[in-house]
Amino acid sequence: MDVNVTDLLVRIDRLESRHVMRDLVTDYCRGFDQRNFDRFLNIWWDDCVWNIGPPFGVFAGHAGINTAVKDVLWPVWRETHHLTSNLHVTFEGVDDARGECDVDCMGALTDNTVQMISATYRDHFVRRHGTWKIQRRDVVIHYFNPIPGAQMTAPQG
Amino acid sequence: MDVNVTDLLVRIDRLESRHVMRDLVTDYCRGFDQRNFDRFLNIWWDDCVWNIGPPFGVFAGHAGINTAVKDVLWPVWRETHHLTSNLHVTFEGVDDARGECDVDCMGALTDNTVQMISATYRDHFVRRHGTWKIQRRDVVIHYFNPIPGAQMTAPQG
Amino acid sequence: MDVNVTDLLVRIDRLESRHVMRDLVTDYCRGFDQRNFDRFLNIWWDDCVWNIGPPFGVFAGHAGINTAVKDVLWPVWRETHHLTSNLHVTFEGVDDARGECDVDCMGALTDNTVQMISATYRDHFVRRHGTWKIQRRDVVIHYFNPIPGAQMTAPQG
Repeated sequence: MDVNVTDLLVRIDRLESRHVMRDLVTDYCRGFDQRNFDRFLNIWWDDCVWNIGPPFGVFAGHAGINTAVKDVLWPVWRETHHLTSNLHVTFEGVDDARGECDVDCMGALTDNTVQMISATYRDHFVRRHGTWKIQRRDVVIHYFNPIPGAQMTAPQG
Repeated sequence: MDVNVTDLLVRIDRLESRHVMRDLVTDYCRGFDQRNFDRFLNIWWDDCVWNIGPPFGVFAGHAGINTAVKDVLWPVWRETHHLTSNLHVTFEGVDDARGECDVDCMGALTDNTVQMISATYRDHFVRRHGTWKIQRRDVVIHYFNPIPGAQMTAPQG
Repeated sequence: MDVNVTDLLVRIDRLESRHVMRDLVTDYCRGFDQRNFDRFLNIWWDDCVWNIGPPFGVFAGHAGINTAVKDVLWPVWRETHHLTSNLHVTFEGVDDARGECDVDCMGALTDNTVQMISATYRDHFVRRHGTWKIQRRDVVIHYFNPIPGAQMTAPQG
């Protein structure tokens, strides 16, 4: 059988890259929810744009990520739980891809009200010097509402 | 090392096919939720069967998909948010595979009541002329109930 | 092009192994939710540890799995629906990997109260004689609370 090895390596590279992008999407959730800022920051290129949309706004670069997370978002929440689904990746080049996924986020505000949030993330993944990171994420929030009367507490030992 | 190249290509093809099936499952959600009928229709072979089960019934072919979506389902909802999980693919041939996944769907009816739905999708994926599509989807709805008192609204800018 | 075939086979094996681990995580959900004990048991090595944490405890070996599922967990629930997300796999060797994923579980207790649960699973996947299974799963439950006033019922035909 005649096999084009270069083509084969590109195909395997793309399969591996898909898992790396999946991990970037996951580390956004984990870094944010576990309040692990280093893990969160590590998914973003330093010239990144994080467009969270209303009512939060647009944040640019690592300084913007720092402000958004530490000054705007974390102070609002007592805890959050982001679960992502439906990740769809489209390659636009060897080192360039678009992602779209949905998130279900459950959380408790500092006043203990339980909130349910649904959003879609649209990502621009870029690979530089062999490493994939997010260059831009646009967020569309579909809803952000309380679950009336609900509490959010862990079982006790 | 002695490598069977034909076997290797089959393995890589299967890995790629898994992502294509994952995208079909995603496009069902996206097409339906974004009311993009072309994207929704494109996942189905024209001899497809969509067995939604009670109380909706069975729909066949592209004409059936059209009826189910435009005349039966979309008119009931003001908005929907389908998130799929646990996709399990079993190959039955080079061009033939079975999928099983679970969906959490949150939505608001036209009367604004917020509904939570859980279901399992069982799919028959078939590849024809190099393209994978869904030939049959059987839906089992586990529950379909309101969240008492809940609203579904997006944040304002 | 100079290709290291051994390296290539390792890369393809890892890609395939990722899907096998994804299936193990899924079979935990399916086996438990569908009350298919064989499917559930089959994901665990016989020297496994399932550390569910408070208030459930630690269970060891296939006998422990049997006790946890049949004597402790299933009797509490009328129905459950586990959806996993954010699976992150890290290889520690050819036959050794760590997984981390999140679960959203909706369920109804035997008294019909509807519960929402969020947890993180941390897994140790081990491959023996060519088969991947879970050697250890540590569970951290983030919350476990009722949705006030909610019911969980399937549509009638």
